[in-house]
Amino acid sequence: MNDNAQNMLSAFMNVNLASISHNYHKISTYVEPSICAATVKADAYGLGLEEVAITLQNSGCKYFFVSDLYEAIRLRNIIGSNDNVIYALNGLKPTMTKEYISHKITPVIGSMTELEEYRANTDEYTEHHIALHFDTGFSRLGFEGNEISKLSINRLNVDLIMSHLSTAEDPQSSLSENQLDQFLKATNGFVGIKKTIANSAAIFRGKSFLLDMVRPGFCLYCGHNENGVLGRLEPAIELYAPIIQIKDIKAGSTIGYGATYKAIKDIRIALVEFGYADGLPWSLKSTNHQSGGQFYFDNAPTPILGRVSMDIVAIDVTGIKNDIKRGDFVEIIGSNQNIDTLAKNAGTISYEILTRLNSRVKKHYKYV
Amino acid sequence: MNDNAQNMLSAFMNVNLASISHNYHKISTYVEPSICAATVKADAYGLGLEEVAITLQNSGCKYFFVSDLYEAIRLRNIIGSNDNVIYALNGLKPTMTKEYISHKITPVIGSMTELEEYRANTDEYTEHHIALHFDTGFSRLGFEGNEISKLSINRLNVDLIMSHLSTAEDPQSSLSENQLDQFLKATNGFVGIKKTIANSAAIFRGKSFLLDMVRPGFCLYCGHNENGVLGRLEPAIELYAPIIQIKDIKAGSTIGYGATYKAIKDIRIALVEFGYADGLPWSLKSTNHQSGGQFYFDNAPTPILGRVSMDIVAIDVTGIKNDIKRGDFVEIIGSNQNIDTLAKNAGTISYEILTRLNSRVKKHYKYV
Repeated sequence: MNDNAQNMLSAFMNVNLASISHNYHKISTYVEPSICAATVKADAYGLGLEEVAITLQNSGCKYFFVSDLYEAIRLRNIIGSNDNVIYALNGLKPTMTKEYISHKITPVIGSMTELEEYRANTDEYTEHHIALHFDTGFSRLGFEGNEISKLSINRLNVDLIMSHLSTAEDPQSSLSENQLDQFLKATNGFVGIKKTIANSAAIFRGKSFLLDMVRPGFCLYCGHNENGVLGRLEPAIELYAPIIQIKDIKAGSTIGYGATYKAIKDIRIALVEFGYADGLPWSLKSTNHQSGGQFYFDNAPTPILGRVSMDIVAIDVTGIKNDIKRGDFVEIIGSNQNIDTLAKNAGTISYEILTRLNSRVKKHYKYV
Repeated sequence: MNDNAQNMLSAFMNVNLASISHNYHKISTYVEPSICAATVKADAYGLGLEEVAITLQNSGCKYFFVSDLYEAIRLRNIIGSNDNVIYALNGLKPTMTKEYISHKITPVIGSMTELEEYRANTDEYTEHHIALHFDTGFSRLGFEGNEISKLSINRLNVDLIMSHLSTAEDPQSSLSENQLDQFLKATNGFVGIKKTIANSAAIFRGKSFLLDMVRPGFCLYCGHNENGVLGRLEPAIELYAPIIQIKDIKAGSTIGYGATYKAIKDIRIALVEFGYADGLPWSLKSTNHQSGGQFYFDNAPTPILGRVSMDIVAIDVTGIKNDIKRGDFVEIIGSNQNIDTLAKNAGTISYEILTRLNSRVKKHYKYV
């Protein structure tokens, strides 16, 4: 941990913007001549939209995906009204067509209802762009096959057609290849319009998924270590929290809510100021019969004991040889434990952990 | 849902400040002559510290508990430097003693290390108050029994001694009664200092837990329906999210990430703009073999189908008789489903859901 971090007194997340820039360059070079867009929805997956978007813009990114109109307007105010393109994935918000136009936001339209509302609220010869979403088996947003065959885009400026994969990260499933086939067939008649289907996982799945544009999100922020095609992508985040008390517990004492963990010998515990209100999953709790999550101190694992509280969690530091004291920090995500391990222990996915870290966790931006 | 809510276009939470005021009055009357404090840590359990604290202040509350110094300073700026008392539960932050004093924050000190640091950084005759935390079996913050017997509070202005219960909500466990006994013994020599041990659940457990002060949190915000001693406490929150697309799905189609749910007949689904980045637990997902969470439309249950995505979730609206369309809202927490049911389906506790709702969820304060 660096000096600056040591000076802090609350839980904090290091966000290394240089890693995000590095990852963007790696991916954009790899996918050439495809365009490398960036998915920055949900406050750039919780890392902070402003800092992340400007970093990506400075790294050459011109195409951004966010979830809805409000995120899009926020992003427009950050990156300015230049030649950047902002796509709002969740479609056209009712009654708001003119807002998309005035803020130069491209709605990703996925239903006839939206398309009719868009047409009804725009001039016939508007130069404003829209994107279309085709559902190829995800059963989420997008036009269905029977709708696509009847779709007329006369007098619309369609800039992009997208689809989304349901199992891109699963090498055992061939659903992604089926979806790609369906997408290529469905878009065959739409000449001269860019196509995109690849999220982070699909970029690594095969060059056939790259099409005109890729839209990585997670791998820009957390790296991706399972596939060597790009060399090393760097995890951009680390998470630390302070110890606020050390105490020695007698055998037989119970720890925390519900008294679900009982010390079977004398142990030393540290109380860490980081709980579920900060974003630590309650499911990382442990009992005597079931292990939960763990943090690291001085590169040694320190298991969570008992339940996670709102603001505090107890960890076992009995085995720590070095001095450990109030004010020291423990690693929650860092060189010893990546976010995937933390998520696995919590029975959830990394994305949920990342996007649900609370505003009490101070962000500390680095560029090294 | 009221008219104002209908006009909104994103997920929102109604926070009924009148219910919080009602609950505060009910509890404070019930516990008299004990003082009724309020626990407002973690941004008032996610409801918004500013609005909640002012409501409580206007309802007569003068004692507030938050987690740490930074929350305490924020609260001090909200409620002003009057005769209100603000306790910072997590103890004394290293190097920050003078900040507690200058902002009139009472640190709840629970270790010799903190006490020594406090003494070393204050004048001998300071009038600033501190509180003490005695650990009576929770194995979280607080002095242990052997430390308490040696504790000298000469020349300290100790305003309050507190402890915290581990199983107050469990009628089968007698740990709370044991903790209370220990607490009464441990505090016996500290004459003229207020004592408190009761959180929300302990208030309902029995009058013997009330002591000089109670510190409810959750039951102020979410009510409490399991015990009749107070009459009705009102849940203060409702949560709604908009439908952004309705679609008809053919039998055999899979829904969402991982393709974990397959439609076994033709069904109609609604895509709701609310995902785990907003605070909907990923664990509310369903498969064909395991049900997950559900929302309500028009007072009818609409089960979640497949996985929860970052920004979206699919629900089954096949059985909905009435017109249902893009722009309509579904109830996540409200008159049909309380937060406890949602939490139970997610395998977690209500508090985690409440404190982890994201800033994308707009708060809509009511006072009716």
